[in-house]
Amino acid sequence: MPQLGLLHGRSWAALLRQLLRPPRVVCIGAVYSHSQDQSSLQVVEAVLTSQLKPHQEKSNFIIKTPKGTRDLSPQQMVVREKILDVIVSCFKRHGAKGLDTPAFELKEMLTEKYGEDSGLIYDLKDQGGELLSLRYDLTVPFARYMAMNKLKKMKRYHVGKVWRRESPTIVQGRYREFCQCDFDIAGEFDPMIPDAECLKIICEILSGLQLGDFLIKVNDRRILDGMFAICGVPESKFHTVCSSIDKLDKISWKDVRHEMVAKKGVAPEVADRIGDYVQCHGGLSLLEQMFQDPRLTQSKQALEGLGDLKLLFEYLTLFGIAEKISFDLSLARGLDYYTGVIYEAVLVQTPAQAEDDLLNVGSVAAGGRYDGLVGMFNPKGHKVPCVGLSIGVERIFSILEQRMKTFGEKIRTTETQVFVATPQKNFLRERLKLIAELWDAGIKAELLYKNNPKLLTQLHYCENMGIPLVVIIGEQELKEGVIKLRSVASREEVAIKRENLVAEIQKRLFES
Amino acid sequence: MPQLGLLHGRSWAALLRQLLRPPRVVCIGAVYSHSQDQSSLQVVEAVLTSQLKPHQEKSNFIIKTPKGTRDLSPQQMVVREKILDVIVSCFKRHGAKGLDTPAFELKEMLTEKYGEDSGLIYDLKDQGGELLSLRYDLTVPFARYMAMNKLKKMKRYHVGKVWRRESPTIVQGRYREFCQCDFDIAGEFDPMIPDAECLKIICEILSGLQLGDFLIKVNDRRILDGMFAICGVPESKFHTVCSSIDKLDKISWKDVRHEMVAKKGVAPEVADRIGDYVQCHGGLSLLEQMFQDPRLTQSKQALEGLGDLKLLFEYLTLFGIAEKISFDLSLARGLDYYTGVIYEAVLVQTPAQAEDDLLNVGSVAAGGRYDGLVGMFNPKGHKVPCVGLSIGVERIFSILEQRMKTFGEKIRTTETQVFVATPQKNFLRERLKLIAELWDAGIKAELLYKNNPKLLTQLHYCENMGIPLVVIIGEQELKEGVIKLRSVASREEVAIKRENLVAEIQKRLFES
Repeated sequence: MPQLGLLHGRSWAALLRQLLRPPRVVCIGAVYSHSQDQSSLQVVEAVLTSQLKPHQEKSNFIIKTPKGTRDLSPQQMVVREKILDVIVSCFKRHGAKGLDTPAFELKEMLTEKYGEDSGLIYDLKDQGGELLSLRYDLTVPFARYMAMNKLKKMKRYHVGKVWRRESPTIVQGRYREFCQCDFDIAGEFDPMIPDAECLKIICEILSGLQLGDFLIKVNDRRILDGMFAICGVPESKFHTVCSSIDKLDKISWKDVRHEMVAKKGVAPEVADRIGDYVQCHGGLSLLEQMFQDPRLTQSKQALEGLGDLKLLFEYLTLFGIAEKISFDLSLARGLDYYTGVIYEAVLVQTPAQAEDDLLNVGSVAAGGRYDGLVGMFNPKGHKVPCVGLSIGVERIFSILEQRMKTFGEKIRTTETQVFVATPQKNFLRERLKLIAELWDAGIKAELLYKNNPKLLTQLHYCENMGIPLVVIIGEQELKEGVIKLRSVASREEVAIKRENLVAEIQKRLFES
Repeated sequence: MPQLGLLHGRSWAALLRQLLRPPRVVCIGAVYSHSQDQSSLQVVEAVLTSQLKPHQEKSNFIIKTPKGTRDLSPQQMVVREKILDVIVSCFKRHGAKGLDTPAFELKEMLTEKYGEDSGLIYDLKDQGGELLSLRYDLTVPFARYMAMNKLKKMKRYHVGKVWRRESPTIVQGRYREFCQCDFDIAGEFDPMIPDAECLKIICEILSGLQLGDFLIKVNDRRILDGMFAICGVPESKFHTVCSSIDKLDKISWKDVRHEMVAKKGVAPEVADRIGDYVQCHGGLSLLEQMFQDPRLTQSKQALEGLGDLKLLFEYLTLFGIAEKISFDLSLARGLDYYTGVIYEAVLVQTPAQAEDDLLNVGSVAAGGRYDGLVGMFNPKGHKVPCVGLSIGVERIFSILEQRMKTFGEKIRTTETQVFVATPQKNFLRERLKLIAELWDAGIKAELLYKNNPKLLTQLHYCENMGIPLVVIIGEQELKEGVIKLRSVASREEVAIKRENLVAEIQKRLFES
C-alpha cells in the first residue's frame, strides 16, 4: 500500500487506529490546546439585536448555518484533507484525470434522471434568465460533460459538493450539503474489466483509511429486473418495487413486504416469490445456486447479469479481493440510472463495535453501471457505457469526527515550522526582517503581531501550537551577528551565525 | 522561494515561463495528444431531440453549462491545481489554518453587507423552510463564523467557489461562478503588522506564479473619507462617490467626473477638488506630500490613515517589497465593508505585452481592513478587527489558459507511471494479477480494458499519455518467471525476476 502522510510526527495510519479505538483519553503526539479550534467545534447560536443600526427596527435573528449544513473548523479540515488525500491518491493511482463542473446546472439537465428523488433537488430562484438547479450528484454532470463534448471514453475523478433537500439526520452523517468523491470509467470496453477495477478501488480506499473490516454487496439490475418479471411484477412497477427492496438494509422483510402489498399494490403471492430471492445473500455459492434456478434462468436479462457477475468474481479473485465481496439479491440502489452491476460497501461491525451505535453510518461507498445516461444527453441517443463509484466521505468523516470529540483530541491545525521571538523590547523591526528571510526561503514561520510581546508568551504560543523550532533575536545576538535557535521539545539553544541560519533550519527540518 | 512542484519532468516555474512567452509553437516535455482533452476544451453545443423517449413530445434543448459558468477539463484542472498549490503553500507558510463554510447562507446573513452589489446575489428558490442565498464572497461567511463561534482571533485561509450574477465578459476572465483564495487575520493586534503580512503574501504568490511584473496599489478608506469631507461631499454620498472613484482604472477622470456631477448630484467644484487628489499616485513621496497638505491634514480620519500608511511602508521596506507598492489616492475598492487600508494588485505590462490584450485582466489580488464586519453579526456589536486578501485565481488562470490555447500545448493529465502490456492473446488474467500487485505497492498503473489488445496499440497509448515505463508479460516471461521492463523513451527492455519487479520499478521512479 502507498505511504500515507505524516500528521504531527505520527503517521495518519496511526492516527486512524487511535481514533477507532474504544473511547479513552489519548493524545496524538503531544497535547496542544488552542481555544479557537475548541469553540469552533460547537455550534454556538446567538441572537443578533441590530445595535449597529439604531435607526432601524430591531430584527432578532439567529446566527447559524442553513439547516443540514455546517462549517468545517480548522481541526475538522485537517482530518477532511487527510481523508481526501487517501481517496484522490488512489484515483490517480488508477490513471484518472481530474474534472470540475459548475455547482449548478440548467434545471432541464437534471429532470428525469433521479426518479422518486427528484423532489430533493434545490432550485435557484428565477431572477431572470435561465432556470437553474444545484447539482444533485456528480454523475449526471459527468454524463452531460461527455455528451456535450462528444467524448467516447474517459476515466475521470471528481471531488466536489452536492446538495440534496433531505430531512437531515446529522447523527448518521447525512447532510443537505455534502462532499462526494467520484471515479468513473466511460467507454466501450470488454465486459467487467472496468467494473472489477471500480471494486478494487473501493477496497484500496477503505483499507487505506483503516476504517476496520468492510464488505461490498454486489448485485445486477438485470438480475433484479429478471427476478421481478418471473415473480410476476408488471414492468411498470419495477422501479417502485426496486425502491422498496432498497430499504431492506434499514427495515425488515416483513415491513418491506407490507409496503409492497399495501401501498404499491403488489399481489401477496408475488411479494412472497420476491421474498424467497431477496432474503438470500452469499458469495459465489449463491451465484452458482441462481444459475441452477429453473425460474430465474428463464429470463434472458437475468442470465446475462448472472454471467457477467461470474466473470466479475473471476477478476476479483485475480485482484485478491473476492473475499470482500458478497453477492446479495436484496441490494437494489435507489437511483434510476443504473443498468447493470451495482454495489455498495458497508462497514462490518464486530459485536463490541455494534454496541457503539456511532459507527452505524450505513454505506460508505457505492456505485454501479449506467450505460444509458450519456445517451440521454446525446441528440442522436448515442450511448457511452459507464461504470463508476462514489465514496461517502461525509460518513467516513462522521465516524472519525465523533471519535475526535469523544476523545477530546487535539490535532495540529497549522504547519508552522519556526517561530521568530525576541526577549527584548523594540525588536519588532529585527523580527520582521528575520521572518521575511525565512518566508523567502520557503520556511513556514510565524511571529506575534505585537510590538513588545513577552518572551514567555511567545514560547507558550509555540508549545500550544506545536511549533518545533524558535529563532530568538535580541541585543546580544544582533551585536555578535548570531541568532539563537531553540528546540521547543528539548529546550536546547544554540547560537548560529546569521548567514547560516536558513541552511541550519532546513537541515533540522529535513532530519526531523 | 520554496520549491515548486514538477510537471512532467519540467518544473512548474519553467512551464509558466513558457506559457508567458510570446506566442510560438512550443512543447512541454514531449508532445502528447489525447483527443479527449482537446475536444473538451471547446464548448460544443448540441441540440437534443429526445429520441430516447418516443412517447413524449420532442423537446429541443441545448446542452450547455449555465451562462457565465464552465467545466474545467482535465488539462485545465492540471493548471488550476498547480496555481492553487502555489497559493495554498504560501498561506500555510504564513501559519494559516483551513476553514470551510457552506455554499449557501441564510439570506439575511448577506443583506446590508455588499452595498450596491447586493443585486448580484443568487437566491435559492423558496421550496419551504429557510430563505437561502449562494455566498457572494468568502469574507462575510468568515465574519459570520467568527461571530457565531465567539472567536476573538484567527488566521485562516479558505479556497472555494463564490457566485455573482454579473454580466459575464468571459474574455477578461470574469465568470458568474468563480474560485476565490482568501487569507485573513482576525484579532486585536498592534497596528499594521498583519496588514504588512497580507501585502507580503500577495507579493510571494504573484512572484511564485511568475506572472511577470506587478504593482500593488494601496490606499486607506479613512483617507478617502477625510478627502471627501474636506472637498465638501456630504457624508450620505461617501459610498456612492467611492463607487465612482473605483471606476478610475477602467474609465477616464473626465467620465468619472461626469458621472459624479450628472448622475450623483455632486457639485462641479466639489468634483474638481476630488479630481486634484485622485489623479495623484506615487509612492512614499506622495505620502509625504499629503502629510504637508493643509486641507487634508485637517481631517482627523485622514491623518490617522496617513500615519498608518507611513508605518505600513516602513514594515514593507523591512520585508523588502516597498518598491512593489504604490500609494494611490484613486484606489477605492467597491465593497462596503472596508474600514482602513485597502489594496489591489495589477500586472504591469511591458509595451510589447500591452499589444496582446489577452493579458489585460485587471486586478489579480485585492483586499483590505474591515474592522466592523464581525461586529455586525455579534448580538452586542463586539468588534473583531480583520484584514485580509483574496487572490483572483480565475484571472490568473485565464492568462495561462489563453496561452495554452494559443500555443496548442499538451500537458499530462494523468500521473500513471507504469503500463501493463502483453504481446499475446489470452493474457488478460496475467495482466490483472500483475497490475493488482503494482497498485497494492502504491505504483500508479494502467492497462487497456480489452481481452486481447495489440502490442502496438498498448505501446502507442503509453507514448500518447506520457507513461514512462511498461511492464510486459507473455508466454516466454511466464515460463521463465520474469517480466520485461521497458523504458518508453529509450525503448530499452530488460528482463527482471517477477519477485524483484516492484523494487526495480520503485528504484527507477525514484531515480527519474
